[in-house]
Amino acid sequence: MIYELADYQKALDECTVKAEQIGEALFGPAATAFAHVAVNSADDVVGMALWFRNFSTWDGAHGIYLEDLYVNPSQRGSGHGKALLAALAKECTDNDYTRLSWSVLNWNTPSIKFYESLGADAKTEWTTYRLTGTHLGALAAEAE
Amino acid sequence: MIYELADYQKALDECTVKAEQIGEALFGPAATAFAHVAVNSADDVVGMALWFRNFSTWDGAHGIYLEDLYVNPSQRGSGHGKALLAALAKECTDNDYTRLSWSVLNWNTPSIKFYESLGADAKTEWTTYRLTGTHLGALAAEAE
Repeated sequence: MIYELADYQKALDECTVKAEQIGEALFGPAATAFAHVAVNSADDVVGMALWFRNFSTWDGAHGIYLEDLYVNPSQRGSGHGKALLAALAKECTDNDYTRLSWSVLNWNTPSIKFYESLGADAKTEWTTYRLTGTHLGALAAEAE
Repeated sequence: MIYELADYQKALDECTVKAEQIGEALFGPAATAFAHVAVNSADDVVGMALWFRNFSTWDGAHGIYLEDLYVNPSQRGSGHGKALLAALAKECTDNDYTRLSWSVLNWNTPSIKFYESLGADAKTEWTTYRLTGTHLGALAAEAE
């Protein structure tokens, strides 16, 4: 399912995860990522939300960051995506987490319209930066 | 120091954190946020980096998300910001975390130039969405 999502996001070649890594992260002794799944009436898994907790310094409170949201193409439009987001929203309100956040590719108009219909704010005044690979290693080597 | 940062980011009115909340998050029994501090030659704390671990589904690996980076105005240009970032980069490479990520306000040109000098990539093809307050509560109420 993760590979199907990467394909939809036009980045299949960047996807290298192995099942054991997901198992360790979700179910290992130091699990720090969490997943909700959506099932259809036959109890088949047809969607997933993979998330972790973040922290807002200003609120002094945790939030949820939704790393991946995916529903099988054949099952879209049946409310599975909204049900997954609603489950995470409830996870927030049950635990006094103040924010539910995620990122969307700018060309993904159907998803953006859906998110805006829920009242989500686009944080267009911010840009995310990421350091990886050799640049990450080069900076690490400068640590005292 | 957190309030000084909020003031610099022109959003002091959004900053409501209390010292006890930070203490609980950083040092409580279920600490999930972490901080590095920078000190000057007199061992005064002059900067901080507040961060938590995130998770990349595609890499199947953890990363670090830097929530806040701050250096006292009087101490800028002395390398404290870079030293804090380098310490986090080392935390990544020491633990096989594949990514060091953070967000920057688009008008903050000095910081953007600094980040690009380190080889960081701007993820301009993504926009972050956030659900809070009454909208978050309304969606939570729809959870099954």
